[in-house]
Order: sequence, then structure tokens, then C-alpha cells
Amino acid sequence: MPTTTYSPPPLEAGTLRVTPIGGLGEIGRNMTTFEYDGKIIIVDCGVLFPEEHQPGVDLILPDFDSIRDRLNDVEAVVLTHGHEDHIGAVPYLLRLKPDIPLIGSQLTLALVEAKLKEHKIRPYTLVVKEGQREQVGPFELEFVAVNHSIPDALAVAIRTPAGMALATGDFKMDQLPLDGRLTDLRAFSRLGEEGVDLFLVDSTNSDVPGFTPTERGIGPVLEQVISKSPRRVIVASFSSHVHRVQQVLDAAAANGRRVALLGRSMVRNMTIAEELGYLKVPDNVLIDYKKARDLPEDQIVYMSTGSQGEPMAVLSRMANLDHAIEPGPGDTVILASSLIPGNENAVYRVIDGLTKLGANVVHKANAMVHVSGHAAAGELLYCYNILKPKNVLPVHGEYRHLVANAKLAQQTGIDAERTILAENGTVMDLKDGDVTVVGQLDVGKVYVDGSSVGAITDADLKDRRILAEEGFISVIVVVDSSSGAVISGPEIHSRGFAEDDAVFNDVKPKIEAALAEAAASGVRDSHALSQVVRRTIGRWVNQRLRRRPMIVPLVIEA
Amino acid sequence: MPTTTYSPPPLEAGTLRVTPIGGLGEIGRNMTTFEYDGKIIIVDCGVLFPEEHQPGVDLILPDFDSIRDRLNDVEAVVLTHGHEDHIGAVPYLLRLKPDIPLIGSQLTLALVEAKLKEHKIRPYTLVVKEGQREQVGPFELEFVAVNHSIPDALAVAIRTPAGMALATGDFKMDQLPLDGRLTDLRAFSRLGEEGVDLFLVDSTNSDVPGFTPTERGIGPVLEQVISKSPRRVIVASFSSHVHRVQQVLDAAAANGRRVALLGRSMVRNMTIAEELGYLKVPDNVLIDYKKARDLPEDQIVYMSTGSQGEPMAVLSRMANLDHAIEPGPGDTVILASSLIPGNENAVYRVIDGLTKLGANVVHKANAMVHVSGHAAAGELLYCYNILKPKNVLPVHGEYRHLVANAKLAQQTGIDAERTILAENGTVMDLKDGDVTVVGQLDVGKVYVDGSSVGAITDADLKDRRILAEEGFISVIVVVDSSSGAVISGPEIHSRGFAEDDAVFNDVKPKIEAALAEAAASGVRDSHALSQVVRRTIGRWVNQRLRRRPMIVPLVIEA
Repeated sequence: MPTTTYSPPPLEAGTLRVTPIGGLGEIGRNMTTFEYDGKIIIVDCGVLFPEEHQPGVDLILPDFDSIRDRLNDVEAVVLTHGHEDHIGAVPYLLRLKPDIPLIGSQLTLALVEAKLKEHKIRPYTLVVKEGQREQVGPFELEFVAVNHSIPDALAVAIRTPAGMALATGDFKMDQLPLDGRLTDLRAFSRLGEEGVDLFLVDSTNSDVPGFTPTERGIGPVLEQVISKSPRRVIVASFSSHVHRVQQVLDAAAANGRRVALLGRSMVRNMTIAEELGYLKVPDNVLIDYKKARDLPEDQIVYMSTGSQGEPMAVLSRMANLDHAIEPGPGDTVILASSLIPGNENAVYRVIDGLTKLGANVVHKANAMVHVSGHAAAGELLYCYNILKPKNVLPVHGEYRHLVANAKLAQQTGIDAERTILAENGTVMDLKDGDVTVVGQLDVGKVYVDGSSVGAITDADLKDRRILAEEGFISVIVVVDSSSGAVISGPEIHSRGFAEDDAVFNDVKPKIEAALAEAAASGVRDSHALSQVVRRTIGRWVNQRLRRRPMIVPLVIEA
Repeated sequence: MPTTTYSPPPLEAGTLRVTPIGGLGEIGRNMTTFEYDGKIIIVDCGVLFPEEHQPGVDLILPDFDSIRDRLNDVEAVVLTHGHEDHIGAVPYLLRLKPDIPLIGSQLTLALVEAKLKEHKIRPYTLVVKEGQREQVGPFELEFVAVNHSIPDALAVAIRTPAGMALATGDFKMDQLPLDGRLTDLRAFSRLGEEGVDLFLVDSTNSDVPGFTPTERGIGPVLEQVISKSPRRVIVASFSSHVHRVQQVLDAAAANGRRVALLGRSMVRNMTIAEELGYLKVPDNVLIDYKKARDLPEDQIVYMSTGSQGEPMAVLSRMANLDHAIEPGPGDTVILASSLIPGNENAVYRVIDGLTKLGANVVHKANAMVHVSGHAAAGELLYCYNILKPKNVLPVHGEYRHLVANAKLAQQTGIDAERTILAENGTVMDLKDGDVTVVGQLDVGKVYVDGSSVGAITDADLKDRRILAEEGFISVIVVVDSSSGAVISGPEIHSRGFAEDDAVFNDVKPKIEAALAEAAASGVRDSHALSQVVRRTIGRWVNQRLRRRPMIVPLVIEA
């Protein structure tokens, strides 16, 4: 269902313009722009991971087109936390203009800087803390602690003369967080009393009833599973989940085991987290992977990546016996992570592979080894009741999540017309406590494939899907440019189509006959002759084999 | 991890040989052969649906190789119930020998015959009922009623002088089934007292704790959802789930609504089910789809296919506004079905599309509109305790399910060495109450793509995956056969690779230079020259664009 696009009018004085560029109708590539008095602030700049109908795509970026000519007006990018879906596109934005300042918490900026280093960019940064206020151009920013599945996450209040917006980033409200850092409901109360004109709120778990259980419930489960394991324990989780790793370290220490970190991103992120004090490593627990292999098997825990079944990650390779550590009977593998929709087949392939090797696989479905990082419906109700925002913009979610979140807001008494179901590119103006939709930009998906950014289009992906479903047939014929007579060929090759190109022997005379007929009627143009070839073999393949491969005909004149 | 294959010895007298051909380590293409005294009986002959790493594949068949030369020895195919994963490959087997008799219940055979009609095969059939015994060659068969998500399912006991095997087919133990037809535990008790030597048991839900709730719980939920719907109601489910459709008809009737069936398979199956008395249509409830559109919107329920997000099915087309029925605000869509792993993205795309159109979408995650058709762990424990089988062969499941089922058997006191974890192709001999693994056949996957059966290989699928991930580049050069000089080209075309073939302008001189160098050193063979082209452009693409497309070089001599 294509959305009708239309341009917004010029921004009026005293008005705050809010435009989500990514993250609405999808889980990922979160990015929203706020404009006031000709100046822009961007909140988050993340990537989206591709689905199976986007083969070969590495990453999907937000579409920077709407700000491409306005980069000099961008005062800063505020990053709410260090997950890829909030920071992953920063390198691609800074490639356009490397001196746009980045604002975020200590851990968030450390993770961004590590990422930018790989892209050879040294950014301008401003580290902020919860409670801090910063004036950035016409925007007064205030940062509020929120609790999420990565430490040091922040919500940001954006005050302008037009009113105040509050963006939660990703958050939940664990009332017993591991690091004691709660989502600051006192600050929410104070902002609510001051008056929140527009509340941009995480929708990821808005259709999950009740409350997300506390992260603290996982430690005892990990401890028990590890204590019962006769041999090695391998734990897989997200490489940025500092608190989950913390619990694994603590559970290992309690069982007299040492922990080796596996996987490049796991090692990099935990090194940063330890240096900055977010990860508290118990004495003498971490051990180098190579040394770990000399320990008795019941004294070791491997902490690895690959909990989503990613084929190149450590856990998949172990399941395929393509890693130095070969799991076997008596070993325990714990997937201490969520199962992101779309990854089910990959994850279950890994679980089956490990089970077949004899390992005992513990995962979310058979033990409480994971809790979500997002606020469920019950928590969101608390937020609405504490903040009493004038207008609500559900963000960070598929459309069904946005709808569910809007309904929660309405249940707390917010008028339906003040809960805004927007899309990426919806332009909204805030003035005098009212939000008006004033435009709809045409925002696309920007595909990264290898080193190419934006070169792959939806048309290419459609070609790829056809190639994947059916393979292709190439037909090359060399014809005499004056007589049109076939000099060489047709040579027919196929890939992904059938075991043996000999199946095409029957159609070659038909192609020759069709070309002879065309030549006899005076057709010489090689493009027209190619079409004759395409039609002839296409019809034959469809009728004979009931298939529709991509057909690539080429008639060469010589 | 490839399995070591080895041939079994010739079958000894007085021994029953059991070989699962499909359904172990996978959910689908169930098929097991039983051989005694040179005669074979086959239980089930189903298809497997492809996963995303098998693009373009329509169906996956069991590998008939091990019985291809033994078809004259096959006494019959016993079909336990009418689901595709148990009957779908029958047409492909009967293509090899159309007069192999089929044995099954009335509904099962009616569904198979409808399917065979499309393949223009009229089978020999024997309709059997629960309680019935039939001597088929050296096998005495006894059929036992089991409860599943399709009516008229049967387990089959196979008695030979070597002992008795009992195959459950798919089943659960709903104690309040809609049609009153229970899984016959009295018969199980009697067989158990007689002595079950080998129990082949459904593992699909063996890792689900507790008990599958009764189907009867769904009716009141459907009734309530329908009663609250201000406009149209669209229910999607499996087209063979007679009892689910029955509940929709009853709930519609209770709300004064009429029901129109949508989708070819839904109409076909329900027509069969009604004719045979399995579906009891309340008076004046069914209405033709075309007439239904003239009814007031609050008097209609559409019953459709597409609950798994299949792109061509009715529900997906509705969500894409590619169907005469265009859902909108006030309409209610109920997905009264499971979510088969791997279909999550497709299903959520449909849910989001419908939500965006304004429809209220009710599904398993937000209301009890589905229960499974398979026995959960608690039910399986009952079976083991009632049957007390000598040996257990978990079937119908991914490897993790087989392991979980074996553990359940062990918990009831069956020795671990008598719970057999087999694979497709594992050959087992039963004699004197003991099962011995005597061989491992090399059983493959047979891919159906269009009208081709077995022509697509794993190598083709690998090609397809490469094509999907990266696209391809074809390079055609015409060279003089004597001098090796380039006459025409290189012509470079790509698909699924980049927007514009102009990206290749840089590499053309490099290819010409490489060919000139090869020609100068005397290379004339067109295959060798093709390799020069492949290496040159391959290296360039990899270095310049960090990608690895399929490269199809062709050097033509003229």
C-alpha cells in the first residue's frame, strides 16, 4: 500500500517540526529529526537488519535524502543508547559530514567511537549524564536515565519555545535492575508536571501483556544450570548485553569456573565495558580462550556470540563442527537471548545441530535464561499515567506495535486524535500543545551490500528473488550482421536451474528456426533478435517444465 | 555432519525390518517402510515444505531410491491421516507404480483421491475403520482411532511373527474432542498387554510441557470475538482443519451470520468433509461467496486459507488490497491456526498489513483461537505408561524433539538403550523383542520444482543462494579462433548486482589486456580464456566493491 507523499509547507516561526525517518513500521534503523528555527537535531541513527526477502543485503540505512541538503543546519545527533538499531548508521551519516557532533552517555559514545574507528572517522563528541541539561542551538536538552538491555541508556527531553518533546529511546522499567540504575520515574513526574507536549515512546513490547520480569531472575537460573553441568558450558548472548555477561561471570565464579570470551564483537564490547566500569569482572575469572582449553572441562564457561543462529558466528560454527571447540555429550549450551522473529529456522538448526552432537541445550523455551529489554503493556501504562502527555507518538515498532501502544495511551485517557499513528517520513508540526500532520516525505530503504551504499535497488532485489526461486538461462547467438544468419550458437547455459544443460538440446532448433524466420522477414536489430530468442525459450521452458527462470538472451553481430 | 552410510545385511527369516525414509530430523515427508519375508508395507508418504535456504523449491519428497527396485514387493501404503506431510508424496510414488494399494480411513482416502485426480491417477483403495483388522501379505494390520487436528486419523499396529510394531501417526489425546472420537486408550491398553515390541511415536510437541488444551475451548472464544465485531469477520485457518471450520460455522450461526468459504483447497476439502458427514453444516449457514457480498457486513463470516502468510493465498492478497474483499476499520480478522516456525515474518507482514488497513487482528498471541494437534509431554507420558512398549522409536520431529521424546520414555522406566534415536535411512531389525540397527541408507532430499522432480540438486540450490545473495555478472567476448584477438566485446551484463552496468566500464580494458596477454602466450582454448576473464573481473569486483557475485564468462571463437 504505497503512501501518498506530499511536501510540508515551510516551517513557521515558533513551531517544532518532528519527522521520524526510520523505526516506524519496522524494528530497526531508528532516526527522528527535530527542527526549530532552521536548526535540526537528530535523535538516533540506527540500522535495520535485512529479512529473507532482501537477500545479500548487509544492512538497511535510514534514507538521509530529506536532510542531505541541510547537514549544515544539524546541530547534533543525540544517541539514546549503544545498540546497532540506534547507532549503526552513524558512520554513514558522518561520511557525508564528519563534524556533526554526537551527544550521548559514556558507554554509548565509546561503542560509537569503536565503530567509527573501523570507518576511519574521529567524531566530535559530548558525553552527557542523566540529569544533565545542555543547550544545543535552539534546543534545550535534558537527559533522563532509562533502564534497557544495555547500560547507560538515556531518554531525552527536547525543550523549545514551541513546547517539549520527550523521546524514551528503548527502555523498560525493571524495578530491581542489576546496576541499580532505574528508569527515572521521578524525572518523568517532574517533566509531566511541567507538561510533555509530545511523547515519543518505545512500542516494541506494547502488545505483550503485563510486565517484563526482572533481569535479576536470570542469575539464579544460570547458576543452577552451570552447577549441574558435568563438562563445559557455552553461553551465547548479544555481544552488547553487559548485564547478561555480568550474570554469567558471577554465576561462573560462584561455581568455581573461569570464563573465556569468544567472538570479535563480544571481546571488543566487554573490553570497553570493563574499562569504563560497567562490567565488574570478579577476580581471576576471565581467562584467555587459548589458555582456557588447558583447564579441566568442568572449570570453564565460554561466553560467545551467535545466539540468533548467524551462520558465521561462533555458536553456528560449533554446531557445524567448524570451530576448535567441538561440543559433545555432557556439554551444556545456554542461549541467553531472545529469538528475534525471522531467525527461528536458523536458531533451531543450531539447537538441533548441538543436540545431535549430544549437548544439552538450554534456551528461553525451556528455562528462564532471558528477559526482554523493552517495556511491556503494564509498564507503558505507568508511563502514560505518570507523564500525562498531551500528544503521543508511538515509535520503534512494526505497525501492529504502534497501534497497540496507541490503544494503551487511549486507555489512560488520552484522546484518540492525540495518539498519532505515523509512518517513516510523516512530518508533524507542534505548536501550542497541538500536533498537526503537515507532510509525508518519500523515504526509501537504503541498502548496504559490501562496500556499495544505495547501489542495490528494490529492482535488483526483485531480480535476486527471481534468480533465487528459478535460476537463470543465458542464450548466446552470434549472427552475421548483414544476412542475419546464425554463425555460432545458440549456446545455452544455466545456473540454479537444472543438473544438466543437455535439457536444452530440444529447444536449440526452435531458436534457430525462430531466428531464421525473423531474419527472413528482415529483422536485423540485435535487441529485437534477442527478444525473439527470449520469447522462444521462455515459452518452451514454461510449457515443458512449468518454470519461469530469468532469461538472459544475447545476440551478437559479427 | 554427514552420517556414515552402510548397507544392511540381507534380511534374515523371522525378522521385521523397519526403515524410516522421511520425517526424522524434520517436520514433514513422513514415510516408514516395514519389511518381513520379502514383502513391504509403507506407512505414510508425505511431503516436506521448503525452508528459506531452499529457494524456488515447491515440495520436498522422500527419497524412493531404497524401494525403487522393490515396488513389486510393496503390499500396500497405509495412510494414517489426510495431512500433506503424510499423504502429499503419494502421487509421486504411484507415478512409479500406479497399482500399489492405498489403505486408510474414509476421509483420508477421499482427500488422497482428490489429490490423485489432479495427477490423473485412479488408485486402488481399501477403506478401513478403527477396530478393523486386515491381513496384508505377511502383515496383520489393526487400526486404532486417534485424535488429531483432522478427523478420522488412525494409528496402525503391525503384527508379524517377529513381533508387533505400533505407529501412532500424528495424534493428541483431547479428552473432550469435538466429534467425541477419542484416542482409543482402551485399545492401547489391550495392545500393551499383548506386547508392543516397537512403538513409533509422534514427537512434534514432545518438548512442550503439560497437556494440549481441548479444541472445545476455542468455540466460545470465536463466538465472543464474532459477537463483538461490528462489520465483517474473516477467519483464516488450515484448509483441512474440519473441526476448526465446524466451530467457525457454529459460532457464525450463533451470531446470526452466514459463512462463505474462500480458497480452492478450503472449498474442495470442506465439500468432501460435508459429503462424508465429518462437517455438519448448520441450516442455511453456508453461502456462496458472490452472494455473500450482498449481505449486510455484520451478517457475514469469510472462512479462508492463508493463515501462514502464503503470498498467493486469500489472506495475503486481502492484506495487499489484491482481492475483491478489502478489509478496513471495523473488520475483524482471526488467524485460527498455529504459526509454523519459519513463517513468522510472512505472517507478521500480513498482520501488519491488515492492521494498517484498520482491521482488528485476533491471533494465537492475543486470544485462544488455536490449539495444537499434537500430544504434549504430559500426554506422551500417559501413552508410555499405558503401552509399556519394549522399544521406542521417536518419529515425526526435528532432532531436538526426538531427543525430548526419548527422555520422556526413559522417565517412565524404559531403558535408554531401548529408546532409539534414528535418522532417515536408519535400518533396524526387530526379532525376539530386540531392535538392532543394521544399516544406514544414503537417503537424500528430492526437490520438486514446477514439473521437474529430482532435477534440482543441492548444487543448484547453492547456486541459487549465491545468485540471491549477490546476483550475477555475465561477460561475453568473441575472439578470433586463430589469432586469439578480441573481435567483439567484452559485453558485460549483470542482474541483481547494481543499478547500472556502467560500473563495469573500468574493468573492460583490464579484461582486454588480460586476454591479449593470454593470447600472446599462446592460449587459444576458449575454456582457458573464460577462466582468464573470470579471474580478472572476479578480482576487480571483490577488491573494488567487496562483493562476490556469480561470474559467468563466455569466450566465443569466431
